[in-house]
Amino acid sequence: NRRGIPEVVYAGGKQPVEIREIITGALNSSDSVLVSRIRADDLPDIMKFAGEAGLRTDEGRNSSSVLFFRNPPPEYPGKVGIICAGTSDIGIAEEARLMCRAMNCGSICSYDVGVAGMHRLFPVLKEMVAGDVDVIVAVAGMEGALATIVSSMVDLPVIGVPSSAGYGYGGDGIGALAAMLQSCTLGVSVVNIDNGIGAGAVAASICRRVRLRGGAEPSADPRP
Amino acid sequence: NRRGIPEVVYAGGKQPVEIREIITGALNSSDSVLVSRIRADDLPDIMKFAGEAGLRTDEGRNSSSVLFFRNPPPEYPGKVGIICAGTSDIGIAEEARLMCRAMNCGSICSYDVGVAGMHRLFPVLKEMVAGDVDVIVAVAGMEGALATIVSSMVDLPVIGVPSSAGYGYGGDGIGALAAMLQSCTLGVSVVNIDNGIGAGAVAASICRRVRLRGGAEPSADPRP
Amino acid sequence: NRRGIPEVVYAGGKQPVEIREIITGALNSSDSVLVSRIRADDLPDIMKFAGEAGLRTDEGRNSSSVLFFRNPPPEYPGKVGIICAGTSDIGIAEEARLMCRAMNCGSICSYDVGVAGMHRLFPVLKEMVAGDVDVIVAVAGMEGALATIVSSMVDLPVIGVPSSAGYGYGGDGIGALAAMLQSCTLGVSVVNIDNGIGAGAVAASICRRVRLRGGAEPSADPRP
Amino acid sequence: NRRGIPEVVYAGGKQPVEIREIITGALNSSDSVLVSRIRADDLPDIMKFAGEAGLRTDEGRNSSSVLFFRNPPPEYPGKVGIICAGTSDIGIAEEARLMCRAMNCGSICSYDVGVAGMHRLFPVLKEMVAGDVDVIVAVAGMEGALATIVSSMVDLPVIGVPSSAGYGYGGDGIGALAAMLQSCTLGVSVVNIDNGIGAGAVAASICRRVRLRGGAEPSADPRP
Amino acid sequence: NRRGIPEVVYAGGKQPVEIREIITGALNSSDSVLVSRIRADDLPDIMKFAGEAGLRTDEGRNSSSVLFFRNPPPEYPGKVGIICAGTSDIGIAEEARLMCRAMNCGSICSYDVGVAGMHRLFPVLKEMVAGDVDVIVAVAGMEGALATIVSSMVDLPVIGVPSSAGYGYGGDGIGALAAMLQSCTLGVSVVNIDNGIGAGAVAASICRRVRLRGGAEPSADPRP
Amino acid sequence: NRRGIPEVVYAGGKQPVEIREIITGALNSSDSVLVSRIRADDLPDIMKFAGEAGLRTDEGRNSSSVLFFRNPPPEYPGKVGIICAGTSDIGIAEEARLMCRAMNCGSICSYDVGVAGMHRLFPVLKEMVAGDVDVIVAVAGMEGALATIVSSMVDLPVIGVPSSAGYGYGGDGIGALAAMLQSCTLGVSVVNIDNGIGAGAVAASICRRVRLRGGAEPSADPRP
Amino acid sequence: NRRGIPEVVYAGGKQPVEIREIITGALNSSDSVLVSRIRADDLPDIMKFAGEAGLRTDEGRNSSSVLFFRNPPPEYPGKVGIICAGTSDIGIAEEARLMCRAMNCGSICSYDVGVAGMHRLFPVLKEMVAGDVDVIVAVAGMEGALATIVSSMVDLPVIGVPSSAGYGYGGDGIGALAAMLQSCTLGVSVVNIDNGIGAGAVAASICRRVRLRGGAEPSADPRP
Amino acid sequence: NRRGIPEVVYAGGKQPVEIREIITGALNSSDSVLVSRIRADDLPDIMKFAGEAGLRTDEGRNSSSVLFFRNPPPEYPGKVGIICAGTSDIGIAEEARLMCRAMNCGSICSYDVGVAGMHRLFPVLKEMVAGDVDVIVAVAGMEGALATIVSSMVDLPVIGVPSSAGYGYGGDGIGALAAMLQSCTLGVSVVNIDNGIGAGAVAASICRRVRLRGGAEPSADPRP
Ligand SMILES: Nc1ncnc2c1ncn2[C@@H]1O[C@H](COP(=O)(O)O)[C@@H](O)[C@H]1O
Ligand SMILES: Nc1ncnc2c1ncn2[C@@H]1O[C@H](COP(=O)(O)O)[C@@H](O)[C@H]1O
Ligand SMILES: Nc1ncnc2c1ncn2[C@@H]1O[C@H](COP(=O)(O)O)[C@@H](O)[C@H]1O
Ligand SMILES: Nc1ncnc2c1ncn2[C@@H]1O[C@H](COP(=O)(O)O)[C@@H](O)[C@H]1O
Ligand SMILES: [Mg+2]
Ligand SMILES: [Mg+2]
Ligand SMILES: [Mg+2]
Ligand SMILES: [Mg+2]
Ligand SMILES: [Mg+2]
Ligand SMILES: [Mg+2]
Ligand SMILES: [Mg+2]
Ligand SMILES: [Mg+2]
Repeated sequence: NRRGIPEVVYAGGKQPVEIREIITGALNSSDSVLVSRIRADDLPDIMKFAGEAGLRTDEGRNSSSVLFFRNPPPEYPGKVGIICAGTSDIGIAEEARLMCRAMNCGSICSYDVGVAGMHRLFPVLKEMVAGDVDVIVAVAGMEGALATIVSSMVDLPVIGVPSSAGYGYGGDGIGALAAMLQSCTLGVSVVNIDNGIGAGAVAASICRRVRLRGGAEPSADPRP
Repeated sequence: NRRGIPEVVYAGGKQPVEIREIITGALNSSDSVLVSRIRADDLPDIMKFAGEAGLRTDEGRNSSSVLFFRNPPPEYPGKVGIICAGTSDIGIAEEARLMCRAMNCGSICSYDVGVAGMHRLFPVLKEMVAGDVDVIVAVAGMEGALATIVSSMVDLPVIGVPSSAGYGYGGDGIGALAAMLQSCTLGVSVVNIDNGIGAGAVAASICRRVRLRGGAEPSADPRP
Repeated sequence: NRRGIPEVVYAGGKQPVEIREIITGALNSSDSVLVSRIRADDLPDIMKFAGEAGLRTDEGRNSSSVLFFRNPPPEYPGKVGIICAGTSDIGIAEEARLMCRAMNCGSICSYDVGVAGMHRLFPVLKEMVAGDVDVIVAVAGMEGALATIVSSMVDLPVIGVPSSAGYGYGGDGIGALAAMLQSCTLGVSVVNIDNGIGAGAVAASICRRVRLRGGAEPSADPRP
Repeated sequence: NRRGIPEVVYAGGKQPVEIREIITGALNSSDSVLVSRIRADDLPDIMKFAGEAGLRTDEGRNSSSVLFFRNPPPEYPGKVGIICAGTSDIGIAEEARLMCRAMNCGSICSYDVGVAGMHRLFPVLKEMVAGDVDVIVAVAGMEGALATIVSSMVDLPVIGVPSSAGYGYGGDGIGALAAMLQSCTLGVSVVNIDNGIGAGAVAASICRRVRLRGGAEPSADPRP
Repeated sequence: NRRGIPEVVYAGGKQPVEIREIITGALNSSDSVLVSRIRADDLPDIMKFAGEAGLRTDEGRNSSSVLFFRNPPPEYPGKVGIICAGTSDIGIAEEARLMCRAMNCGSICSYDVGVAGMHRLFPVLKEMVAGDVDVIVAVAGMEGALATIVSSMVDLPVIGVPSSAGYGYGGDGIGALAAMLQSCTLGVSVVNIDNGIGAGAVAASICRRVRLRGGAEPSADPRP
Repeated sequence: NRRGIPEVVYAGGKQPVEIREIITGALNSSDSVLVSRIRADDLPDIMKFAGEAGLRTDEGRNSSSVLFFRNPPPEYPGKVGIICAGTSDIGIAEEARLMCRAMNCGSICSYDVGVAGMHRLFPVLKEMVAGDVDVIVAVAGMEGALATIVSSMVDLPVIGVPSSAGYGYGGDGIGALAAMLQSCTLGVSVVNIDNGIGAGAVAASICRRVRLRGGAEPSADPRP
Repeated sequence: NRRGIPEVVYAGGKQPVEIREIITGALNSSDSVLVSRIRADDLPDIMKFAGEAGLRTDEGRNSSSVLFFRNPPPEYPGKVGIICAGTSDIGIAEEARLMCRAMNCGSICSYDVGVAGMHRLFPVLKEMVAGDVDVIVAVAGMEGALATIVSSMVDLPVIGVPSSAGYGYGGDGIGALAAMLQSCTLGVSVVNIDNGIGAGAVAASICRRVRLRGGAEPSADPRP
Repeated sequence: NRRGIPEVVYAGGKQPVEIREIITGALNSSDSVLVSRIRADDLPDIMKFAGEAGLRTDEGRNSSSVLFFRNPPPEYPGKVGIICAGTSDIGIAEEARLMCRAMNCGSICSYDVGVAGMHRLFPVLKEMVAGDVDVIVAVAGMEGALATIVSSMVDLPVIGVPSSAGYGYGGDGIGALAAMLQSCTLGVSVVNIDNGIGAGAVAASICRRVRLRGGAEPSADPRP
């Protein structure tokens, strides 16, 4: 399918029957299809359909997103570190993981490394560097300091994902977005609030570039 | 003067002659007067006047605020730690220091401990705790993570002051304010953007309460 | 548990079964656990569980927060005054009270002292000063003038909590937050909208400092 | 001129020569003309012109507005109370006073009654009620509590004017506007930030209605 | 009751049983009580209770507000014109009417005079002027031009009420609020979005002043 | 030049020498070039250059925009009505007129028809309809009601241009933009604040379409 | 009916019975009535009523709007191109189509031409130009680039409709609105977020003008 | 110096003498120092100093940023494509180029490829892909569509930089930021408005990762 990026479907406002049809259609031309924001009530219906259709799935933990495929996408060299601060961020981090998987990247995930308990952050970053990740995705809501702190500790590109955790002034991800855009360290770029899928796509596209150039394969061509 | 708090004068929009008169008037009833936001062009004129009038002064570094007094305000027990992240925050931090001084509190100041160089933060906090500060004022612009990080490391009340350093989205202190209000650690309260004077007043009022209760002196009475 | 502050759990988006497990887990290492924003529908289930598990509770009035403990937390010297303006603010004020209780502070609470009936405010403040509170938490929505007025009347640190009462422009706490940050009296610091728990934590940390320094005990050490 | 309301000219962006012509023209059909927001540099030029043209003037104190007339506008029964909180609000309050004068209303003004010194407010309100004002204009920046407090103390319509005094979040009058619109007392209506002229016009139109109905004169007719 | 203004109760977030108790309590000290924002589901229950308790009611058309009283409030001289633009504004206009009634003012109401059909506006204003109203309340959402247009046509104070009708940018009353505050005619003051009750209170307080001064009765005294 | 639209140059931040070069270059390939936002200080220099270079010009009244051409652009059939409310809007209205002229459309302009004096609006609209305009451009700041009112009176497409006249809440064109987007009449579309050039371009493109289709000429072709 | 524009009814907040009555009433004086924002639950009820009443309908695909008529509105010369980017925009595009139909214009619609697949855009625009549309309506949410891109490719007036598709910062149509107002091509005007009906009305009024002037019929007269 | 990233100095608010000292100091420990936002008035002074001190410089075109070094930084394999839409964006694009240079990356720059002339974009992207860039930085103000369009055409990570070009609603980069965060293509991440330096740092860190992994060198280690 288009650009080595899986079909991504936004389930919001679609009926289960529509979603089922889109999944079937997409798998004709794509290796996998990632369906995001499935309503909790529709999920059982859709998972049942997938089972009956012989599809395999990877369900994002705490997430409303599911990756559907017939054969597990092969995992090529190149890994993404994915890190988040709190329970409410896990679903977004999982969207990034699923997107990486669909784009043939491995990932090392660690989902409980908030700023309030910063000592938990050191061993996690050590493990990611040892595991040779090419880029780190950092998901955080509230004050969003995580992206800045990770970037100050590791020599790698960091993609910040503000999550909508938090209420009051600066809530719904607005404060975290501002903080990440204002980051006083260099090396952080940002995707929109709760856009784990976008972060995964950027991270995987970096991995892919690393992989292709390492092997000197031709990698990109203009499209039109 | 009112409530053990020095007269505070906002110089913005006042002529030097008005400022001089206010200083003279204020020192009749107060031990000191803190003049903030003096225009750079007016400063020499006002300092000269102070010299001729036999006043002593404490000029805030990188700041447009000056404390005027005849006799140095006595320093009672109780200290405030004041910390800031970057060069542009020093003027605001100094406003807090001057306010503490005017309210008879000592202070331990450290003005170069940004999040991007977090290793510089540890010894600074150690020294403040050893120096027995009652409360820490943390001034930071841009992503404003400093207040959160300080609070996660020390068991003391922290007063965050967002500074207007930073441009673009979340600039002018808005992102730092949001981040401090969203702080995921408990123990942080906040004053308005660039309000170093307000932060100093809150910090000194905490010190004063500590001092008075330690010595069991009567301390507060309702006013009207 | 961490820093003499009880475990605080945000129930939003968690299932009753998860909440029950977190309570049980937290009480292994903490004296108490404060669960906030419990959905009304889940409350009976959770209270029943607490009863069966032999836990004691303090339910915030008009609030979705409950403090769970096995033995009532001891109350050390040091008190917090907690004041609010209208019926809709009581739940937030109660969060502050519960947090103080969990942090071993007493409190004097008065929940009906709006600005529209200012004469009710004087005796309340008199009682709090007589009761020797170290700090006052003022919760108010709509125009949020309460924090300013309290601070103009009493010589104590005041922590303003904007509440989300109010609709239209400046509603949802935004106007009250702005008013408190703009307060023309000195001595007010602020926590985020509806963040009664944060206000309680700051207030209790001030009380604790007063208590410790009064007795000259060592009180704070850097954490990392 | 139109509707018993004087010609009001916004000088911003106009050349002195244009302003002079407008003044002359307006006084052909109006008893007075109120010119607002005159640049400080243009003021001497314009006052000189007025003197030479035999015009009389009422200059607003601390204000960039001036009322021009050939004969002092007669003062009919009906008075407006005008009150403001700080030095920076005086210019706006004066705009209201000039507008009332041009619309033949008297006024009782008191310009130093901030919330931080609330005890100064009581005698001022007493005097206004004794002086039989029909309505009170309350100008305040920063936290804007003044309008609410005045309205809670007196049984009269109150017109709040948020002033642009104040910086940081809620600065430039935004916080005061929100607070006045959110006022928890009933009886307050609001004009835009720094719109002293609008407030004066509303207040004078109330006085005029009181005056006309007291004497049972016909007072208003639809225009088209 | 307080200040000749009826008790006003915000039903939002209150249980029917609480509301019933508040009504009963309020009518001990007040002639009437206005309950606003009653949930549609609770209304039958509360109306039934009122019937059984022998209370009389005035239900706002299209509104969630009801006025309760034992004896109809007497109507003194002085009338308010109340005008609105569209179907969705009627409920807010009715809140103003109920408040006027509770404060002993008559009203002349016209609820279908939008700007898109301006020709319907002329006869309505003619009737209001003929009926000798003292002040006009103009409720409008969307572009909020009604207040400006009314004020340009009639020599009376106008109180604008932005209503939350309208979606997209400037929706929820924000655009109407801005337009009313920016009104290029003089003589308009504003209350908050959807605050029909506040508008009624201001209008009635103007009527009351007209009535009292017409008869030279003493009218207002400072409260504390 | 491109698409029958003249070269349009934004002079902001360009040196006079650069502007002169751009004008010369543009007139090689275009019939005219419209230079907008020329700083007042640079204008004489640029007009002098134009004179010496034998260029003819059309200077926008009260505007910082000038149209340069060698031969007056021919005026084809099709006219635009251009209307504005106040003195401060004239410069923006003139930008629209210049753009129409450059795009070969005539215009009928009327620059003093504010809402506060609505009776002046009727004859103006009559004249425009009699003059057979195809579309009306309505420029207005502050409460921006003009676009709505014009559209309610005439059966033609109306293009609203919010102008940045106005201060305080909703100032700088924000309130006018909101009001025009919320317009309760159908038939209004909007360009950005102060974008007179954009409005002129849209209006002229409508005229052009009318002209071409009236004569059945082929008119538009896809570009790439 | 008014101005050759069909009655348009906003069903939000109206009961089915009210809607039915309004439809019946409107069809007495209008050829058609367009009912927008019908709640999904009410739709069957209303369609059944229409059938029983012998009405014919045109239901917007994916939309909550329905056009009701007795006889299909005649289609006069003049066509509108209607284009949208994603599934979620179709309902809004359909509102524009229905409005055009009610106003006697034909339309050429293409609903799957997002920016991410720009190659699909070329043939669509070719077809529209070949079909001789007078104006193009472009509906797009998220980053809203579609309007700009269409306008850069075709010599016709373009009306941008920001749709509320998209979440996070700039979501709910805010980013698309900003992008369309900022469009760097000339020839784009904008209606409010999700206001497909408004866009249709503007487009049809342009078509109508083209049609009338082509035939030299008199077309517009001032209304009052 | 720290992390292979040059010292970056924000000249805003610093005196020339301070800037000179910082440059000298930084070059003791760094290969180069990038000074941004130098005031136009200070530039000659600073360039003269550099010449006298034997420093070499790379001045950003149309920019207020200059890179200072003693020896030209070596250029390692790995290139960045840098693209911008209009004249006003060039200075920001140049900041990215200087940062890449300081971080040892080459760049291919093209500064005149706006969306309004999209045909100019194709050959530019072809050249960049042929030149084997690893990542593309796209700078655009106003409607910010460039980042989306580039990303839809090329299989490479794209870093969007909203520039502050543009006025009115969505001006100052706000609309471009929203549009880039809302980008409907996957593969775009964003830095703050006008933050060309940040974009360069992210791009160079991606290049560096590609370079290191291609050669299998160890690349990143956790820092504290
Ligand atoms: N959760 C998501 N966040 C951001 N973009 C998404 C998400 N899910 C799907 N998309 C994108 O949105 C578009 C889906 O549009 P649709 O045709 O409505 O399914 C596709 O271009 C997807 O790449
Ligand atoms: N820089 C400052 N920030 C916040 N408040 C200030 C500042 N300077 C003075 N104030 C307060 O503002 C008021 C001064 O008002 P004024 O009478 O205009 O000098 C006093 O209540 C001061 O406590
Ligand atoms: N719909 C309303 N809009 C504005 N203020 C209201 C409204 N209803 C009640 N109030 C005011 O809000 C306060 C009611 O607070 P409560 O104690 O929560 O009932 C009183 O001061 C009323 O005057
Ligand atoms: N979906 C819609 N978007 C914008 N305006 C609408 C919409 N539906 C109806 N209207 C307009 O809103 C008004 C309907 O008001 P109402 O009397 O409440 O039905 C009419 O002037 C319609 O032209
Ligand atoms: Mg890094
Ligand atoms: Mg702490
Ligand atoms: Mg105090
Ligand atoms: Mg009152
Ligand atoms: Mg009037
Ligand atoms: Mg029309
Ligand atoms: Mg075009
Ligand atoms: Mg791409």
